[in-house]
Amino acid sequence: MLITFEGIDGCGKTTQLRWLREFLESLGRKVRTLREPGGSELSERIRDILLFTKENVAPRAELLLFEAARAQLVETLILPALAAGEIVLCDRFYDSTTAYQGYGRGLPLDEIAECNKIATQSLKPDLTFFLDLSLEESKNRSHNRHQDRIEQAGDEFFEKVLAGFHKIAEQSPERFHIIDASGTSRETSAKIIEIVKAKL
Amino acid sequence: MLITFEGIDGCGKTTQLRWLREFLESLGRKVRTLREPGGSELSERIRDILLFTKENVAPRAELLLFEAARAQLVETLILPALAAGEIVLCDRFYDSTTAYQGYGRGLPLDEIAECNKIATQSLKPDLTFFLDLSLEESKNRSHNRHQDRIEQAGDEFFEKVLAGFHKIAEQSPERFHIIDASGTSRETSAKIIEIVKAKL
Repeated sequence: MLITFEGIDGCGKTTQLRWLREFLESLGRKVRTLREPGGSELSERIRDILLFTKENVAPRAELLLFEAARAQLVETLILPALAAGEIVLCDRFYDSTTAYQGYGRGLPLDEIAECNKIATQSLKPDLTFFLDLSLEESKNRSHNRHQDRIEQAGDEFFEKVLAGFHKIAEQSPERFHIIDASGTSRETSAKIIEIVKAKL
Repeated sequence: MLITFEGIDGCGKTTQLRWLREFLESLGRKVRTLREPGGSELSERIRDILLFTKENVAPRAELLLFEAARAQLVETLILPALAAGEIVLCDRFYDSTTAYQGYGRGLPLDEIAECNKIATQSLKPDLTFFLDLSLEESKNRSHNRHQDRIEQAGDEFFEKVLAGFHKIAEQSPERFHIIDASGTSRETSAKIIEIVKAKL
């Protein structure tokens, strides 16, 4: 089973992923946690280019770099872990590309869908949790973190990204769950665990 | 006008590109020469990953990294140069991806075509010169060069790549010229210049 976490930075993905991991391990399940972009040595090198380069990055170069890191992650880590019966929890997956590079940067959605399909070899998450939090609250929660290249984009960009995640939710109701993340992180975790329990 | 040079390493692309540049400049044309992967700071960083990483690179990650470097080159250098009326000479372009990652590595050709289209924004070369030389002769000519990650593949791989270039030639006769590169480099250059003259 592949479970992905989506949302803008500061929404609590990393914390929620950790708690779901603890819950699943308490059931005796073997869990692998990964993050995008990254997770393998090659993907970390790509992550470094993506997040910290000083050069202007063409929108399609950004798209294809994210997809390259994803292709490496899927082929070398996610598919083998799934084949071994592990539950894979991933901090971001291809919905982030649709939201950020598609709805955010304005690249054609059909190009994004095609690249997502190639990079993932048509693999889809069984469950996706979108941690829904206003831009203002997300910024409050992440105010003392160092910002990377993409986090430096303005509010207008992130509003488009948030609206994009809601559009994706409408198009993928079978797997995509909008989770209100405005409460405490324990409250949010309880909602996620309930849905995962039902799926198991 | 966009003119691209294709062929396996050792076939003489770099030399031919330089001589065509000299010829065009002698006519008073402004010429920009570029190489793939590379040509911009970002693309050079991607080139470094592609050619010198020690890690196993998933075939689709390799494909998407080449496409990312290409997208950056097209958006930031090729399209602006063409818009300014320059002649652009490129050492490799998307036919290399079709030949190496498609025919060589065995990735589906429709995935490659889709990625090529996205990375280039559907830009096509006006002329492509494939410098046709046997694998044996190419190896002889490049025997004292340091080999990169892709050049370390075995003979079987390069025979598939060569056959791939010939299939591309059949499918794109309007722009793709097979140039016998077995003679002296001046002889080869004369053939190329004749075709370029006709096109101008």
